[in-house]
Amino acid sequence: MNTERPVILVTNDDGIQAPGIHRLVEALPDNADIYVVAPDGPRSAQSSALTMTNPLRIHRHPEMEPAGRSEHWMSVNGTPVDCVKLAMHAILPRIPDICVSGINHGSNAGNSIIYSGTMGAVIEACTLGIPSVGYSLLDHSMNADFSKSLLLVREITRKVLDNGLPHHICLNVNFPANTDIKGLKTVAAAESHWTDEYREYTDPNGHKFYLITGDLINDNPDDDGTDLYWLPRGYATVVPVTPDQSKPDMIPYVRDILNA
Amino acid sequence: MNTERPVILVTNDDGIQAPGIHRLVEALPDNADIYVVAPDGPRSAQSSALTMTNPLRIHRHPEMEPAGRSEHWMSVNGTPVDCVKLAMHAILPRIPDICVSGINHGSNAGNSIIYSGTMGAVIEACTLGIPSVGYSLLDHSMNADFSKSLLLVREITRKVLDNGLPHHICLNVNFPANTDIKGLKTVAAAESHWTDEYREYTDPNGHKFYLITGDLINDNPDDDGTDLYWLPRGYATVVPVTPDQSKPDMIPYVRDILNA
Repeated sequence: MNTERPVILVTNDDGIQAPGIHRLVEALPDNADIYVVAPDGPRSAQSSALTMTNPLRIHRHPEMEPAGRSEHWMSVNGTPVDCVKLAMHAILPRIPDICVSGINHGSNAGNSIIYSGTMGAVIEACTLGIPSVGYSLLDHSMNADFSKSLLLVREITRKVLDNGLPHHICLNVNFPANTDIKGLKTVAAAESHWTDEYREYTDPNGHKFYLITGDLINDNPDDDGTDLYWLPRGYATVVPVTPDQSKPDMIPYVRDILNA
Repeated sequence: MNTERPVILVTNDDGIQAPGIHRLVEALPDNADIYVVAPDGPRSAQSSALTMTNPLRIHRHPEMEPAGRSEHWMSVNGTPVDCVKLAMHAILPRIPDICVSGINHGSNAGNSIIYSGTMGAVIEACTLGIPSVGYSLLDHSMNADFSKSLLLVREITRKVLDNGLPHHICLNVNFPANTDIKGLKTVAAAESHWTDEYREYTDPNGHKFYLITGDLINDNPDDDGTDLYWLPRGYATVVPVTPDQSKPDMIPYVRDILNA
């Protein structure tokens, strides 16, 4: 049995001030060395974006560090993936035993994985060989009630710390909002798409501009093997995710159409 | 046979001024209606990031539209994915027959797909059901010589226009730089990782800051089924890519470790 204190990396995409990351840290084990390295403000929908030219700075937040726990709180003026990379390069004492991201204010179910900064950080840590889990609550509000998800956060984090995860597999966990959670379903991400994606405005000079909006539509609403089926029914969902988007089983088909 | 003029959406992540996108458009068929909707400046490594709160504006560039071809050039003050989404919402006359992105100044081989804005746009179009191809040249310079890649750009674009691509499959094409291209290999993305990712600096006030750097290391350099094997040997590579990062074959394993 490993008696060393676990090292836990925590990040998110809502920024270090968001209540979700503070609730997440409260649910982590007392015997761990916890390093929070989170964006200095909201970075929703930043996917796996990197900061390429802007200087990145690390800012310490001793005012966030409670007495009696080994918590180190730092913010970075970058994306969630910047936070993971910079934590590994310049902050952490060793490769962490787990990376947890969230708890996101809002859903990352269905095809939201593609855009999610919460999951961008998880996928980054996964590529670095770190067992990684993203947590999201289906409530965008900064006043969201995370209390009913914390038991599962604690349990899943503990089990991943104990068991690890397979090579190139990380987890995307979503919690229903404002309900008692009926259970946990391990499923696939629902195939889904967005509608009505922009609202059009006219500025005082007569020029048009656009703001993003829209609804996520479940393409197969009766498929009970997917996250978008179970979340509205009061269940939390776990989706195994891989960073590897290459699709080798399609190589013969592509060779055929390209003669290559 | 479909006698309608093809509609082609073109974007990139280096911005509308980058030579690579102008060379790409020159390689497209004369009988097509071409819509270039590209970022108004460099957006490298923006992955699938979305602009959430900043108003998006579309700027026309009639000065870029040559006589005698049906080319419509527009820039957007957002990410590559914003360009695709906004093109679909507010610009294109119908769903395009193909989306092409690039030609990127720099490699998108190995695990670069994760961070690439060029491929973010391709993956977005793919989720919308559009056959989509990203093109990249292994030369970051703005003076890069794209001439040797244009024959293959033309050929691959034509074949994808003629044959389409399977559901949720898009293509990531990379070209070697400064060499005669020996052929085209359809392969998997090499498992790979980055080293030495940040350089540390001290500003005039004594505060540290960081800029990203680093090298992409091929984890399996002898695997001739991968892009990073063939590119240094003078071959262009095609990798089939899927937007779907969910990994349903891992569900039983995850259920087992989580008891869920």
